[in-house]
Amino acid sequence: MEYEGKTVFEVGEKSALAQTLRHFKPVESTIIESGDDSAVIGLSSNQFVVTTDSMVEGRDFRSDFSTGYDIGYKAAATNLSDVAAMGAQPISLVVALLITRETKLSWLEDFAKGLQAALDELAPSAAVVGGDLALADQIVVAVTAHGDLQTQKPILRSGAQPGDVLAVAGTLGKAAAGLSLLLHDDKSLAASYPELVAVQLRPKPPISLAVGSTAKSMLDISDSLALDANRLAAASNVLLRINRLDLHGYSAVLEQAAQSISARDVKTVDPLDWVLYGGEDHGFLATFSPDSVPMGFRKIGAVEVGSGVYLDSEPLAPRGWDSVSS
Amino acid sequence: MEYEGKTVFEVGEKSALAQTLRHFKPVESTIIESGDDSAVIGLSSNQFVVTTDSMVEGRDFRSDFSTGYDIGYKAAATNLSDVAAMGAQPISLVVALLITRETKLSWLEDFAKGLQAALDELAPSAAVVGGDLALADQIVVAVTAHGDLQTQKPILRSGAQPGDVLAVAGTLGKAAAGLSLLLHDDKSLAASYPELVAVQLRPKPPISLAVGSTAKSMLDISDSLALDANRLAAASNVLLRINRLDLHGYSAVLEQAAQSISARDVKTVDPLDWVLYGGEDHGFLATFSPDSVPMGFRKIGAVEVGSGVYLDSEPLAPRGWDSVSS
Repeated sequence: MEYEGKTVFEVGEKSALAQTLRHFKPVESTIIESGDDSAVIGLSSNQFVVTTDSMVEGRDFRSDFSTGYDIGYKAAATNLSDVAAMGAQPISLVVALLITRETKLSWLEDFAKGLQAALDELAPSAAVVGGDLALADQIVVAVTAHGDLQTQKPILRSGAQPGDVLAVAGTLGKAAAGLSLLLHDDKSLAASYPELVAVQLRPKPPISLAVGSTAKSMLDISDSLALDANRLAAASNVLLRINRLDLHGYSAVLEQAAQSISARDVKTVDPLDWVLYGGEDHGFLATFSPDSVPMGFRKIGAVEVGSGVYLDSEPLAPRGWDSVSS
Repeated sequence: MEYEGKTVFEVGEKSALAQTLRHFKPVESTIIESGDDSAVIGLSSNQFVVTTDSMVEGRDFRSDFSTGYDIGYKAAATNLSDVAAMGAQPISLVVALLITRETKLSWLEDFAKGLQAALDELAPSAAVVGGDLALADQIVVAVTAHGDLQTQKPILRSGAQPGDVLAVAGTLGKAAAGLSLLLHDDKSLAASYPELVAVQLRPKPPISLAVGSTAKSMLDISDSLALDANRLAAASNVLLRINRLDLHGYSAVLEQAAQSISARDVKTVDPLDWVLYGGEDHGFLATFSPDSVPMGFRKIGAVEVGSGVYLDSEPLAPRGWDSVSS
């Protein structure tokens, strides 16, 4: 094992990349792969969708909680969900990765494996087609993802209409519950709820439910149900009313974890707070005609004339994650 | 001036972005702008090219040399040149920007103005269509750029053939000379050579000469003529012979700056070293059929059977910039 225990800096960019790139698999839409000045990507039409999102060590992840594999997986998943939220099929990712002088080559390979695993599990039509590796004071991952709209029009945040059903695909609150467990002083807690911790570390947005969906409007729930629902309502100029009863299933599965935390703290944890105000599950919030809510989406409310978001009759404030001020 | 002197952190992401995004101009190919989960971009065919490159404070730029405007300009220029080096027309950029808690809103606006200025001057067909803003310990800019191949095949590094002419568009060595001047202990030196310093801080690759070019092979000279010529030779499986005499014009314009530095140091500076081994000019190295070298490209050598790069009869080693080990 000639590279065992070595840092990327010690091994050098060229050898480190050669070791790392072999973990990626090509797909059919990749016409020219990374290695020239740019990659060339084929589409089934003359439009593509593009989105970018970055993750910063110490803010978006902690290296004591997340392995390189976890970080690669999450970086892919969060960007794939933004592509799919347009109704587009994910086809390609480019990855700008900043590492430190101390980053081990084994970490870099692990990161690549996690990225590829997310593609294999969530969007096998997509591949890593390019990237950039450089040194910095902390690890930063900036992914740009691309999608093919195929024969479909993009599904925007602005398409919701009064009379539509409001529905969700994917988990709600599990990622936030996982984070609370990881951050707790009692380090045994996280180990007791591996499924919740896994959603925080390696979210699995139901990409295939969003691609080519019949939704009239859609977005991915990255910052919180409350915040992202307010974005959808504002973009569509409608009122969204969420039924508290329809959220019961989401909070019920978090009840036990909430009780475990509450038993150790002076303050009681309400699992509904995770469901409403916790981000990072990267499920989809969408609206449909009443007769066409597809399998995999669960109804949680309705679209009405007006503005803002209500939980039953109470206004639901846009509380959630702000990437600069939080 | 309600935001005067304030940091982005103090102002908050939403207000800071609103102040900043107004500096960007849309273009025709942008179907859906930033603001939804992804942007939607139109093409004239069913292929696009994509490239990504990042710049890190302290490694790729220094905030005491470069203003926000300079950094925005350079981040755009370096990525536009990678798109154009494929022969593609630049159409869209997405920008992941990491700033610190101390970064002023005025810096962010300046950065946006520099980005837009590079698009206006170098590639008016392209626009900033999306981005991501977050906090980190140092400023990092990761740009992903996209291009439209129109009716053309991509121009690859692997297309050079024996008998082709080797040619260059753009400056050679000016960016490296500018950097040497900026780094010199005698701070009056840089002020004496504003043109060279400007190429280092705000390179102006001749994008329009590369887009739709008749070149048989091409790449952008980012790391050095010596290193990038070796990449072209290896990809095309040919020998590149550079004529020392053809480089004379490039080194002659750097002679005076080299003498100014040499007069202050014990070591003599040879301006040919800047031409051969200095990166960051972001001009284009290309090969053409002998009868079809277009205006704006200058012949510097020939393509022969064999391997490697020669300066007259001497092998030219692939010395230049390594983003991880340098």
